[in-house]
Amino acid sequence: MKTLITGGTVVSATGRTAADVLVDGETIAAVLAPGSTLLGHDLAAHVDRVVDATGKYVIPGGIDAHTHMELPFGGTAASDTFETGTRAAAWGGTTTIIDFAVQRTGERVMDGLAAWHEKAAGRCAVDYAFHQIVGGVDDDSLKAMEGLVAEGVTSYKLFMAYPGVFMSDDAQIVRAMQKAADLGLLTMMHAENGPAIDVLAAQLVEQGKTDPYFHGIARAWQLEEEATHRAIMLADLTNAPLYVVHVSAKQAVAQLASARDEGRNVFGETCPQYLYLSLEEQLGAPGFEGAKWVCSTPLRSRAEGHQDHMWRALRTNDLQMVSTDHCPFCMKGQKELGLGDFRAIPNGIGSVEHRMDLMYQGVVTGEITLERWVELTSTTPARMFGLHGRKGVIAPGADADVVVYDPAGHTTISAATHHMAMDHSAWEGFEVDGHVDVVMSRGEVLVDADGYHGRAGHGRYVARELSQYLV
Amino acid sequence: MKTLITGGTVVSATGRTAADVLVDGETIAAVLAPGSTLLGHDLAAHVDRVVDATGKYVIPGGIDAHTHMELPFGGTAASDTFETGTRAAAWGGTTTIIDFAVQRTGERVMDGLAAWHEKAAGRCAVDYAFHQIVGGVDDDSLKAMEGLVAEGVTSYKLFMAYPGVFMSDDAQIVRAMQKAADLGLLTMMHAENGPAIDVLAAQLVEQGKTDPYFHGIARAWQLEEEATHRAIMLADLTNAPLYVVHVSAKQAVAQLASARDEGRNVFGETCPQYLYLSLEEQLGAPGFEGAKWVCSTPLRSRAEGHQDHMWRALRTNDLQMVSTDHCPFCMKGQKELGLGDFRAIPNGIGSVEHRMDLMYQGVVTGEITLERWVELTSTTPARMFGLHGRKGVIAPGADADVVVYDPAGHTTISAATHHMAMDHSAWEGFEVDGHVDVVMSRGEVLVDADGYHGRAGHGRYVARELSQYLV
Amino acid sequence: MKTLITGGTVVSATGRTAADVLVDGETIAAVLAPGSTLLGHDLAAHVDRVVDATGKYVIPGGIDAHTHMELPFGGTAASDTFETGTRAAAWGGTTTIIDFAVQRTGERVMDGLAAWHEKAAGRCAVDYAFHQIVGGVDDDSLKAMEGLVAEGVTSYKLFMAYPGVFMSDDAQIVRAMQKAADLGLLTMMHAENGPAIDVLAAQLVEQGKTDPYFHGIARAWQLEEEATHRAIMLADLTNAPLYVVHVSAKQAVAQLASARDEGRNVFGETCPQYLYLSLEEQLGAPGFEGAKWVCSTPLRSRAEGHQDHMWRALRTNDLQMVSTDHCPFCMKGQKELGLGDFRAIPNGIGSVEHRMDLMYQGVVTGEITLERWVELTSTTPARMFGLHGRKGVIAPGADADVVVYDPAGHTTISAATHHMAMDHSAWEGFEVDGHVDVVMSRGEVLVDADGYHGRAGHGRYVARELSQYLV
Amino acid sequence: MKTLITGGTVVSATGRTAADVLVDGETIAAVLAPGSTLLGHDLAAHVDRVVDATGKYVIPGGIDAHTHMELPFGGTAASDTFETGTRAAAWGGTTTIIDFAVQRTGERVMDGLAAWHEKAAGRCAVDYAFHQIVGGVDDDSLKAMEGLVAEGVTSYKLFMAYPGVFMSDDAQIVRAMQKAADLGLLTMMHAENGPAIDVLAAQLVEQGKTDPYFHGIARAWQLEEEATHRAIMLADLTNAPLYVVHVSAKQAVAQLASARDEGRNVFGETCPQYLYLSLEEQLGAPGFEGAKWVCSTPLRSRAEGHQDHMWRALRTNDLQMVSTDHCPFCMKGQKELGLGDFRAIPNGIGSVEHRMDLMYQGVVTGEITLERWVELTSTTPARMFGLHGRKGVIAPGADADVVVYDPAGHTTISAATHHMAMDHSAWEGFEVDGHVDVVMSRGEVLVDADGYHGRAGHGRYVARELSQYLV
Repeated sequence: MKTLITGGTVVSATGRTAADVLVDGETIAAVLAPGSTLLGHDLAAHVDRVVDATGKYVIPGGIDAHTHMELPFGGTAASDTFETGTRAAAWGGTTTIIDFAVQRTGERVMDGLAAWHEKAAGRCAVDYAFHQIVGGVDDDSLKAMEGLVAEGVTSYKLFMAYPGVFMSDDAQIVRAMQKAADLGLLTMMHAENGPAIDVLAAQLVEQGKTDPYFHGIARAWQLEEEATHRAIMLADLTNAPLYVVHVSAKQAVAQLASARDEGRNVFGETCPQYLYLSLEEQLGAPGFEGAKWVCSTPLRSRAEGHQDHMWRALRTNDLQMVSTDHCPFCMKGQKELGLGDFRAIPNGIGSVEHRMDLMYQGVVTGEITLERWVELTSTTPARMFGLHGRKGVIAPGADADVVVYDPAGHTTISAATHHMAMDHSAWEGFEVDGHVDVVMSRGEVLVDADGYHGRAGHGRYVARELSQYLV
Repeated sequence: MKTLITGGTVVSATGRTAADVLVDGETIAAVLAPGSTLLGHDLAAHVDRVVDATGKYVIPGGIDAHTHMELPFGGTAASDTFETGTRAAAWGGTTTIIDFAVQRTGERVMDGLAAWHEKAAGRCAVDYAFHQIVGGVDDDSLKAMEGLVAEGVTSYKLFMAYPGVFMSDDAQIVRAMQKAADLGLLTMMHAENGPAIDVLAAQLVEQGKTDPYFHGIARAWQLEEEATHRAIMLADLTNAPLYVVHVSAKQAVAQLASARDEGRNVFGETCPQYLYLSLEEQLGAPGFEGAKWVCSTPLRSRAEGHQDHMWRALRTNDLQMVSTDHCPFCMKGQKELGLGDFRAIPNGIGSVEHRMDLMYQGVVTGEITLERWVELTSTTPARMFGLHGRKGVIAPGADADVVVYDPAGHTTISAATHHMAMDHSAWEGFEVDGHVDVVMSRGEVLVDADGYHGRAGHGRYVARELSQYLV
Repeated sequence: MKTLITGGTVVSATGRTAADVLVDGETIAAVLAPGSTLLGHDLAAHVDRVVDATGKYVIPGGIDAHTHMELPFGGTAASDTFETGTRAAAWGGTTTIIDFAVQRTGERVMDGLAAWHEKAAGRCAVDYAFHQIVGGVDDDSLKAMEGLVAEGVTSYKLFMAYPGVFMSDDAQIVRAMQKAADLGLLTMMHAENGPAIDVLAAQLVEQGKTDPYFHGIARAWQLEEEATHRAIMLADLTNAPLYVVHVSAKQAVAQLASARDEGRNVFGETCPQYLYLSLEEQLGAPGFEGAKWVCSTPLRSRAEGHQDHMWRALRTNDLQMVSTDHCPFCMKGQKELGLGDFRAIPNGIGSVEHRMDLMYQGVVTGEITLERWVELTSTTPARMFGLHGRKGVIAPGADADVVVYDPAGHTTISAATHHMAMDHSAWEGFEVDGHVDVVMSRGEVLVDADGYHGRAGHGRYVARELSQYLV
Repeated sequence: MKTLITGGTVVSATGRTAADVLVDGETIAAVLAPGSTLLGHDLAAHVDRVVDATGKYVIPGGIDAHTHMELPFGGTAASDTFETGTRAAAWGGTTTIIDFAVQRTGERVMDGLAAWHEKAAGRCAVDYAFHQIVGGVDDDSLKAMEGLVAEGVTSYKLFMAYPGVFMSDDAQIVRAMQKAADLGLLTMMHAENGPAIDVLAAQLVEQGKTDPYFHGIARAWQLEEEATHRAIMLADLTNAPLYVVHVSAKQAVAQLASARDEGRNVFGETCPQYLYLSLEEQLGAPGFEGAKWVCSTPLRSRAEGHQDHMWRALRTNDLQMVSTDHCPFCMKGQKELGLGDFRAIPNGIGSVEHRMDLMYQGVVTGEITLERWVELTSTTPARMFGLHGRKGVIAPGADADVVVYDPAGHTTISAATHHMAMDHSAWEGFEVDGHVDVVMSRGEVLVDADGYHGRAGHGRYVARELSQYLV
């Protein structure tokens, strides 16, 4: 199967070029000056399909490096399966996800990884890879980390929050980071001071402050800032590269910026919710409505200016990527578990379908450049997590994961129309200038004007190399 | 004329790919998966020339954004003409230079620009563009700035040093920056406190401290740091993007880093001399030898760690580019003017031929990545100064300015073999792993294993667009 | 004449003590445990006068280290003579002023100093000392600086603002600071970038923006921050201690704080107007009313939070003192000179009478402690400017400059009741908890419940030693 | 008993004055202008004793706010009893100590406090007070904290190090700080990340790195910096004033400085060992010799410049006090417990006798001023810990704790002559310019030229008020 994408503007992290893209089989065969001939050869005549991208952007497919399909959490599980979640991703122009396999205390790392392979295999619409959560650092799991690179899992995640569930104490963090530094694994960190949060949360509930809003009060910015700094120092001690997930507090960004100014391999992602939504408006919605936006780290105060600061950090490269932390729960039967006690509300927001659109809105409003949009959503995720060359770039030899994006299009977000397995949308009513027109995954068109052509099982597991973003 | 570059690794700012590059006429026609066929078409059979890049890097030609060919200075003139200087550039893999046209108090800006066009036209081996020095800010020159964009000159330079020669006082700087902000011109700044330097220099000479070494003492780091901060604040006041040239003091970098952390459009370049050479070793060489390394800003103390800090800043992107500030003077008859008074030594070091090699050495030693090398020497210079799309990238439609670089090659630097019009080399005896094998400018091979094929006049003036690097 | 002050709480910079104070002649003879006997000796029986301070604070008389009596400025002169100004000071609990003798380009330093002696001699109600303004740095004035210490003038002031009037360029600043560092003189700096301000001010007037408010716009915070940093770096270069006068921008404070964190001898004062008044409320008052508050540095924006930041800096000791910059002008015939052009409004606010009360209000509101109040208004000014031992402390041997302050008293500020030679008050209607009850200068009661007992000529010139505050 | 101290220079935190000091009974009755008459009253004739302080400094007795007499630690106990330790303190000019009562998990706070009272009562040569160590934060100990203020114990200490012994986790710290903030208690913090240290220490021992030197390697500066920052943020969260004990890493100071710049009530002490001794020289002494200097936080690297930075921080007031952390162990039978495993070496250095002398040496070398010496060793400790008015100042009504210090004297430190119960001295061979001549405690002379006149039981327990140093 050969495809020629013609007439578009190919956008990379460093610039834009009028060019055609030739896809042959699963990979990109060439990027060519516009026009269908090459050295007298009429390419259009030799391809099976021509995609007209005139007036549109041709970009590498989105990479969402932080999703939690079917994650068991608080007695329930994230509502998107790998099948529904990756289909929604495809609809939204995301052609690769990196999900988190889970190990807990008492479990074996390779069992967790195997379980995740089993959940995903044969069900995904787009390619997928795994990070490994190490929720119980001990001799056995440390030993198991040695096998991860060979499995194509080159990053793992620790938690400084959720004591008794996922949390590693500082001794465990040091041991894991030492091991990771030896192996070249990238340490991902959920940086919130869990023990302190649990004290505050319990006190709030005791005082009858049980609404979703107080989830945001208990998880004070000081406790994100503190944990971020602690993670940075432990990484410095052990010479381990560090990647902080879902950064939401401006003070945490300041810690990252300071470490990065000193040349440390310290990175951070934020998520669309921390750019657009707030403690006051969403989490503080009347009644139990705010439960829709209960996630951790929490939405932050707009009065304190965190949202503007996140955009700035994306411009200054103090944050390098935008992932979704996609972890959907329905209100009915799931979020409702926390009626009367915000601590029991499953943590998570579903956005895997909307990331590319929501971030493109930053281009429209002038927060970021078109090139930075591509860099934040695809090129850097690929480099950060060892996918460069295959993903994240429109270049010969790369997987033909290509999105044709129409800047003149328009997208309205609603639970009525989205494809995620959720009974509501955290983004209900959002109007986005721009539209995902065509989505191609390894040469196969998943989405176009005629609708969805994808299928469960098209998506393959991608073994990742070591991070290509270290300095 | 059609050329196919095969078998190499194409390196960009964000990654590397095994790919062939097809050149048709002056531009790149395609970047293709390796192998000479495309949809059944044997490309090699249809091109005039095949360049074998097996085992080598294929990179965009270097862009040296800071040169001073034939610059009149202190009663003499820089020893490289546009002819000799651009030929040397070509030898070293630099296929575009941006030189500085000069206006002084009492002169007209457009006369200065015209004079530079006259010097360069028909003499250059590689493409060239101009920045405009505005050495006398007044109503007339401010008015003249309005014409620069149409001339393709989208950046101009002010001096905070050299009172009575080039220096603008703060009132002049504010007026020029206001104008630049209106027009979209990028303000380049020589950031040293000239009046303070002149006091210290005169005192040193009075005390009999006349050796080249004292050039470095008079130009204390405090006076670079101070001017850098002042430039940043005046830029903040006027909302003008700022680019600080030849940064050498770590404290000046700290000022840039701090401004950049706040999201300001503040940029900085350093030069190879500030990465490798020092106050103690070179400027402090016995007798008058140090005169070879008299340049401003001066070489800094290695004991204070400035050199390491410059490398770090290149990694952290607190400095975005490496230019040469190529401004060659011979010892005989030129540098010697300052025997007995360092103030009379013409300021400048010649490096236009060696920049790509010297910076590649940073890849060898692990200071920077291969991708960062390309970004610092070509991609960012192109974006910073409005050349992106035509220069700085291996992409269809771009000028076919291509360098084949051999990582297994070796380069020895010496005045005996260099091509610059200098009777010595600031880099005498430097051994560099890596070698510029082939240099192509707009599809024409200037340098290959058979030697030099370039010619005066091949190089064309390039009108630049506004900076493409602003956030 | 012997006086016993009984029953009060003696407050120092480091604590408070219930103690009696015995004054014998011009000096304090003893500080004693409360009660009128000492080793069987009934002190009350041996003194001429007993002052009952029960329930009140006994503090060292205020030292206002920044006044401009009779200062010629913009074609007029400050409206307070040494006679009226020091009488007002006495009413307000200030028993020492340090005024600025003026030298301008073309004048001789010692002539300026002599002129100031002449103005003040025989006219002052309280003791006075001088700083020396060096408005024209040249060989002659540098030479003259050598004589200042012997005259008891151990600090001098330079201006980075007012080009053509007082301004020193950076070359002059370096030369003066070098001289000062040699001599031990403290360099005081008016830190605003004058040339840049003049450009902005001229542009505003050209645009018809002539109201007092635009005085504050022209003197943007960036230009105070910039000059502050520049002064710090030139001081670092020359190893000269630095004291920045009338700091009003929070960003300037940040520069001081950063320098102080590094252990540099860098100091700053602020003034009551920068703690209480703002650009929006006072300078932006309707019509020409704002002229009352035209001073330089200007009042700053409350929305930007400068006022709160100044209080914080007083707590953190990033600012060490509060002076008034007392420079009164009447609206009629003086401020009015700037009707239609804010540049012609004489710069200055009159507060010498109110400083102790206004700052005590900070104790009432909890911004500062009682001890800090004494430190900021008396003890540190004495140490900073070489008066310690004689002034600034309640201790045996010190001049008996003592204020009895009633925390239960109340003060209303109004032009109708103040003693300064002004036709308005910048503080009209301010209500202050606290009251200056008794003011004693060298053992003589100037003010008590019966009113004013002072006289012109009581105040003597005080020759100052070198700063006692350096680290 | 009445004493007149004549002819000396009374030094306070803010200045020095020639003055006599009259002591009547236990308190200071008056500070007087020199000369023995007052209003015709010949004081010398009415006193029992005249102390001639001509040519000497008269200063408030030292306050050592950090001692551990008889502290059980690692299976042994600190070798100084309250009797020997306070006698040594007296010899060295320290007239008040604040020792740490200990509570551990499972013990009751008030039992710990009672035990300390029992150890000290009737045995002390000088006055003493207590901080309370809360080594096991739980509901019971939190409740017990409510009783501390009434007991005159207004500060308590938590540990972030020593897991399983003293360490509080972050949940415990938050709960304790909340309680402290309510009560006005000052939180003292041992800020080192214990769990991380224990991992490193175990690894070192496993690798056969068992010498005392590795104690310093295991307790890396990153782990002090990290814990310091964490303590600051938890204090910010809970609005609790914070005092960090025994700061030794320059990076920890930077954290304090940054918090203090923002106006937070964050304080720090350092100790003489961190000013004079180093990882390389002392801790790295050949064989087991280094055990003498095993203390926590550890001695830091001189190559990294921590010692100079501590002096600087004392000048900038980023550190406010110098205590000893006096915790003596003999080599024989105590330090030797750690032969073959540095982890078993009892932690501690004995300096209570030498603090005043060692810090005076900083005056001699110009690191600090004379006034700052008094402030660091006496005035601020008194204010910080609620003793002001009674201690820390030469003022009427204060306890007559007075030291006559001879700047022309000389002190040689040696185990052969010191009075601490130690078989070695950490300061062996130190030569100090300056000498403690006379030591008076509440009007009683403990030390003079004739030797020691003190007695066990003279020293009384001092109930402290809340901190008087908060802003």
